Amino acid sequence: MANIKIAIDAMSGDHGLNSVIPAVIEAIQQFPKVDFILVGDQTQILTALNNFKSKKISIKHCSETIAMDEDPVVAMRNKKDSSIRVAINLVKENQADAVVSSGNTGALMAIARFVLKMIGEVKRPALMSTLPTKNKRGVKMLDLGANINCTPEQLLQFALMATAFCKVIEQIPNPSVGVLNIGEEKNKGNELVQKASELINANNKINYYGFVEGNHIFQEKVDIIVCNGFVGNIVLKASEGLAKMLMQTIKETFMQNLKNKLRALIAMPVLKEVSKAYDPDKYNGSCLLGLKGIVVKSHGSANAKAFNYAIKQAIIAVQQKLPEIVDNTLGES
Amino acid sequence: MANIKIAIDAMSGDHGLNSVIPAVIEAIQQFPKVDFILVGDQTQILTALNNFKSKKISIKHCSETIAMDEDPVVAMRNKKDSSIRVAINLVKENQADAVVSSGNTGALMAIARFVLKMIGEVKRPALMSTLPTKNKRGVKMLDLGANINCTPEQLLQFALMATAFCKVIEQIPNPSVGVLNIGEEKNKGNELVQKASELINANNKINYYGFVEGNHIFQEKVDIIVCNGFVGNIVLKASEGLAKMLMQTIKETFMQNLKNKLRALIAMPVLKEVSKAYDPDKYNGSCLLGLKGIVVKSHGSANAKAFNYAIKQAIIAVQQKLPEIVDNTLGES
Repeated sequence: MANIKIAIDAMSGDHGLNSVIPAVIEAIQQFPKVDFILVGDQTQILTALNNFKSKKISIKHCSETIAMDEDPVVAMRNKKDSSIRVAINLVKENQADAVVSSGNTGALMAIARFVLKMIGEVKRPALMSTLPTKNKRGVKMLDLGANINCTPEQLLQFALMATAFCKVIEQIPNPSVGVLNIGEEKNKGNELVQKASELINANNKINYYGFVEGNHIFQEKVDIIVCNGFVGNIVLKASEGLAKMLMQTIKETFMQNLKNKLRALIAMPVLKEVSKAYDPDKYNGSCLLGLKGIVVKSHGSANAKAFNYAIKQAIIAVQQKLPEIVDNTLGES
Repeated sequence: MANIKIAIDAMSGDHGLNSVIPAVIEAIQQFPKVDFILVGDQTQILTALNNFKSKKISIKHCSETIAMDEDPVVAMRNKKDSSIRVAINLVKENQADAVVSSGNTGALMAIARFVLKMIGEVKRPALMSTLPTKNKRGVKMLDLGANINCTPEQLLQFALMATAFCKVIEQIPNPSVGVLNIGEEKNKGNELVQKASELINANNKINYYGFVEGNHIFQEKVDIIVCNGFVGNIVLKASEGLAKMLMQTIKETFMQNLKNKLRALIAMPVLKEVSKAYDPDKYNGSCLLGLKGIVVKSHGSANAKAFNYAIKQAIIAVQQKLPEIVDNTLGES
């Protein structure tokens, strides 16, 4: 069997090559049967590789980069030789099996949708990520910002796609699905969640739990939570912001004075254990579900370790033939 | 000047009289010029008071209680002698200046709206709370679940009411307002936030910052964040759930084994300091803004300390004549 080939958008994200190159070098050692195509400015990539050579790395030169704040539609139209576009083209042309990018989310989605096309009735890709939970299993949540105005049918699609993902990629035999709402009672919520709940409940491919509330996200009540992208994006960012604030405050309080600094020396191993358990790097990588191809979006601020986790996700998705599975699940329903 | 009178719904919340009675007894000592009317079952209240007597406490007997999961409309129609209804009637009849209740939010709002009526053009009360922020000043957020389908005009009303609240109650001279969205860029978001942003920006009574994202909530970017109640409720509950999970994990990790338990002894003072800074009890009490009367909603799970904070909020609102200020602000705009 030929090696898996992963196209890496080497130019994007806040740290660009500084996080991409070490992540790929590590991945080479972790995955002997995977090759990497670094897409970006050849000179810059060679400089960043700093004489590191491997048969498993090749470079695909391109002349443009899409900035993080660039308008997605304009970028798609005008930057035909951007690292995102060229990397996605490689998948389209069967020269790569998946793309990993820390780039502009809107541009990545628009270009992926335009070049790779959507599966069946799916209109736009859905952004799905894993959020940490109390017992460390994590909950899959979608959509996280790709679809800000959803229909009930889209929420049903999200539930189906994520169910397929959890069964195959996470090996959860019968993943449970919840619809995010302001209360658990059946009569609660707006028209969207009311209708989506009916549709999802009526679908026998889905193990439907019912409505879940904001505080249930982290309690592992369900394996999958579906919501419209406006809510999902805000909840995700609020959670990231709150966790950061709390951990920062703990650190700052320990550093406040000499007495606390001495306490910190002793307490640190425990706090490190906690930080490790909820290490956001480990959760890096959102799958763009519903595409006829595999695209993994890494966090814009991803460091090398986090980017490596996103690469890992892409490899598993290739091994498990994610688009095929999603297609089958949606097709039969 | 006559004493301020606060009507206390003594029968509601998860802990009922067990949290209400100690909270009121403490408040008597804190506020010598405030009297309290305990509304509920006289026999149960007398038992809970356990021979404690004060001229500043009176009891208003009523025969019914609305359960936390009861349908608000049915409860309003059928339970005319419920503790919530009787307490709100006291405000209507000028026998009390404010109500504090840990009861069924929907019922409290429906009854308050029906009995006390709304100010001017306001359609339904807005639930506003303070969320903790990095520099401890806190951010006011509304709506938190009273209005799940909002119009742009309602978001403008929220911004005006909260501005008035912050100026008078919090003594912030020129409070800044943000609209919660999935991005800071002007073109981002759904129709509601787009139109609301225009309206708020055009209103010269409001110090408008622009869009804020989920992670900005805890960074103190603005003093006030407005959003529709569906999003607000989910974000609030998700934040509470995440903070709880993190603090629990820290505690559990410290208790895991003897080595960590010894570390805990040393680290505890610091962790207590952090817990104290973000103590959710201190943030208990949501004002129902837009009513022609003062109603403070305490968290259903409030303990005595938390309920006492909600009482404090009600007293300040009475002292500062909150409904009058809100009326003036909305009336002129």
